[in-house]
Amino acid sequence: MPETAAPYYSELTRLHTRLYRYQHLSSIVGWDRNAMMPPAGNEARAAAEAELSALIHRTRTDPRLETWLKAAEQETLDEVARANLREIRRDWRAANALPEALVEAKTLAGARCEHAWRSQRQSNDWKGFLENFREVLRLSREEAKLLADETGLAPYDALMDRFEPGVRAADIDHIFGDVRSWLPDLITQARVKQAGEAVLVPQGPFPVAAQRTLNREVMGLLGFDFDAGRLDESAHPFSGGVPEDVRLTTRYSEDDFARSLLGTIHETGHARYEQNLPREWLGQPLGSARSYGLHESQSLSCEMQLARSRPFVGLLAPLLKKHFGDQPAFDPDNLYRLWTRVKPGFIRVDADEVTYPAHVILRYEIERPLVEGEIGPEDIPALWAEKMQALLGLDTRGNFKDGCLQDVHWSDGSFGYFPCYTLGAMYAAQWFSVIRRKIPDLDTRVAAGDVKPVFDWQREFIWSQGCRWSTPELVQRASGEALNPAHFRGHLERRYLG
Amino acid sequence: MPETAAPYYSELTRLHTRLYRYQHLSSIVGWDRNAMMPPAGNEARAAAEAELSALIHRTRTDPRLETWLKAAEQETLDEVARANLREIRRDWRAANALPEALVEAKTLAGARCEHAWRSQRQSNDWKGFLENFREVLRLSREEAKLLADETGLAPYDALMDRFEPGVRAADIDHIFGDVRSWLPDLITQARVKQAGEAVLVPQGPFPVAAQRTLNREVMGLLGFDFDAGRLDESAHPFSGGVPEDVRLTTRYSEDDFARSLLGTIHETGHARYEQNLPREWLGQPLGSARSYGLHESQSLSCEMQLARSRPFVGLLAPLLKKHFGDQPAFDPDNLYRLWTRVKPGFIRVDADEVTYPAHVILRYEIERPLVEGEIGPEDIPALWAEKMQALLGLDTRGNFKDGCLQDVHWSDGSFGYFPCYTLGAMYAAQWFSVIRRKIPDLDTRVAAGDVKPVFDWQREFIWSQGCRWSTPELVQRASGEALNPAHFRGHLERRYLG
Repeated sequence: MPETAAPYYSELTRLHTRLYRYQHLSSIVGWDRNAMMPPAGNEARAAAEAELSALIHRTRTDPRLETWLKAAEQETLDEVARANLREIRRDWRAANALPEALVEAKTLAGARCEHAWRSQRQSNDWKGFLENFREVLRLSREEAKLLADETGLAPYDALMDRFEPGVRAADIDHIFGDVRSWLPDLITQARVKQAGEAVLVPQGPFPVAAQRTLNREVMGLLGFDFDAGRLDESAHPFSGGVPEDVRLTTRYSEDDFARSLLGTIHETGHARYEQNLPREWLGQPLGSARSYGLHESQSLSCEMQLARSRPFVGLLAPLLKKHFGDQPAFDPDNLYRLWTRVKPGFIRVDADEVTYPAHVILRYEIERPLVEGEIGPEDIPALWAEKMQALLGLDTRGNFKDGCLQDVHWSDGSFGYFPCYTLGAMYAAQWFSVIRRKIPDLDTRVAAGDVKPVFDWQREFIWSQGCRWSTPELVQRASGEALNPAHFRGHLERRYLG
Repeated sequence: MPETAAPYYSELTRLHTRLYRYQHLSSIVGWDRNAMMPPAGNEARAAAEAELSALIHRTRTDPRLETWLKAAEQETLDEVARANLREIRRDWRAANALPEALVEAKTLAGARCEHAWRSQRQSNDWKGFLENFREVLRLSREEAKLLADETGLAPYDALMDRFEPGVRAADIDHIFGDVRSWLPDLITQARVKQAGEAVLVPQGPFPVAAQRTLNREVMGLLGFDFDAGRLDESAHPFSGGVPEDVRLTTRYSEDDFARSLLGTIHETGHARYEQNLPREWLGQPLGSARSYGLHESQSLSCEMQLARSRPFVGLLAPLLKKHFGDQPAFDPDNLYRLWTRVKPGFIRVDADEVTYPAHVILRYEIERPLVEGEIGPEDIPALWAEKMQALLGLDTRGNFKDGCLQDVHWSDGSFGYFPCYTLGAMYAAQWFSVIRRKIPDLDTRVAAGDVKPVFDWQREFIWSQGCRWSTPELVQRASGEALNPAHFRGHLERRYLG
């Protein structure tokens, strides 16, 4: 990557190589903390991780960087190096845009609010939450304003840009507005259609050892490279590690294999993105995954587009029989009905693919005006209740625990993240539109166990692109059009009304 | 630990707290590399670990340290802080005594020699080894000379002081000279005595899952704190991690449970030392384990003094029955005979407790004159053959593979380490002399499952002392006398001739 004719650019790449290595250490010890570390190790680990974070922060805010960036931007660079330089500036801006005092205050207020939230949620204590949350919101608004000044974006756009570069609230308004116009009807129709269907629930116990073997076998089917990654266990499943060594975790319950299996499939989608980032750019910002929304498009491609499709369920059914013995519920048609069941509920993380966007739209419609000062934090519960009624027909009045207190995101001020979940689902549907156009017999091939065409396409248009383009540019290049909710709608209509 | 009245000393302690945290990261990712990392992760990990090593080296050689040390040595400090300051200087000297060019050259030559040694050992290629080894030796002699100039010690003493602070070749000569005078006879007598004993070998397979559970149960019996550590698997078993979170590994074979069990017991001895270092000094050099010899005294206290004693074998026998089912070989008397079998052999790491010192004495008697230039590297094979004949009655002429090529230590220039193994065995025997004097019914208590008195003593006199004293001082304080080979001899005579 370093270019001898561009000494300042070379300095920048060397510093980022160092940062990449520090982040490697951070990822591995973070994985260890969640998957391996015994409880008494926590205090020393926290101190070691904080020391490393401080080192990473010092490196990202090295005062020489500003000069180097300006000088490098005058150097002669090829197109790839120029894209990398843009990402280096992006990282620099992210690390330097905010005064340290604000970052510290927000971290502190966020940690306090999140910590209290854990018990406040249990006890349905909205008033208690509100006390801490006011400060988090105040600091988040200040953060949004400073980022807006720095980037020239609107405040909410500036927050969202950290997670989904190039996507703006105007785009989201347009897209979510479209979804809002047809989703409630689609939910109703799907439920009417499913009301008459009989569904058998698999009966456990499903031994953990058998689940482990099954999960690994399915990961293999989905192309996970076990020479460059692992599957372990943790209380909260996640995809961690580094591109060269991806660490997935899951959690087992002997009553229910599907939660772990489908969760592992979801994480495998994240893992394949990481495992297939462009080797030649690894170590530089250009070589990392583009965005949270695109990452989610990969996990949902695996879980929703592929694994819950009828052809793929047909592949899974014999594996279930092999590992758990046969039972009537393992009939592929039954499994497919079970895993595509639509049921409006209070909780986002438990939602099916059809009702999920409603949860996200609701949060977006609250957090945007909240950040921009159009509404206050005390307005949240009423808006929540009103929107849950309108979107999902559920009454959540007074039930904060299963309502506006259910997510961790707001407690630490992670505003602008929620849209990524549904953008991811929509990107995934759009990718599969393209793939299906290109490979008309896709279902037949998947049914025969050949999932390679899907991943070949993802490798070419998404994984190998790293951070070369903004998300909207990548969407355009990969699919020939901007993000278009018609693909997501088409997918849902085919699967749930077809 | 920081003292406000001693600003320079405080600076030093802050820097060492930072170092301690960096070393925490290094230990955990090192453990991960050996116990968890998939093969394709290696290249990125090596780069990340090298970056961290460079950072640790920069921190230890921070040019401000020299000034701070001199100034701190003029400050008013209590006795404990003064001991810590002494250890801080020791660490500083270790990091700064050698010119960087020499360190690099030795690392390079050592890595090259060790890498080639791996195949040269297999093919019995002494001549090939010698070619690389000459350079390693040349650089090691230079290293020894510089360390000698710096410390005022003799060259070999200066090397050994890195591993066993305060112990000199004159002490070793005296002690090993004594052992040499009675060991060959003792070996012969023990073999004559054992010749008439029938020994049954346990018959496998011993399922790995059962071995895992057994090992954990025995670790628990020996006081390993599973809230502050783990047992995992790796190709080369080791004790790693950090004092707050000790990571042991072992390796399983279904044919032989004893290798893994006794190896795990050995590592548990190392682990208990680490897990019980003085909490209040952790993070400072004073809070770390004193030396390699003392560390080995802890593993050998567990393995040789305790676990292979008849009373402890009586505790293990019912556990073997519980986990593997009953068989005649699990009779405690048989197990005891089996695990105290004396048999001279070529290979140090496979040696029993009685013949082991012969392997170490031989190496010491070669490496000392080698480092000090009294002999050349080409003299090694003849000396090896002569000493193997004299000490163990074995003919190793021409068999380099199982002779002077068997160990990794010389290939990378780790001269001065070998004595630690036998010092450890002798310290352990001396500790048990003291413990037995203090607790005359020790065997009865161990037979009843009460091993606490042993560990209470170790905690008070060894673990809690960290680096407060040099090794000879600690030995004197713990046992009331200097290291005395009579205790080791007494132990061997009681166990093998009694």
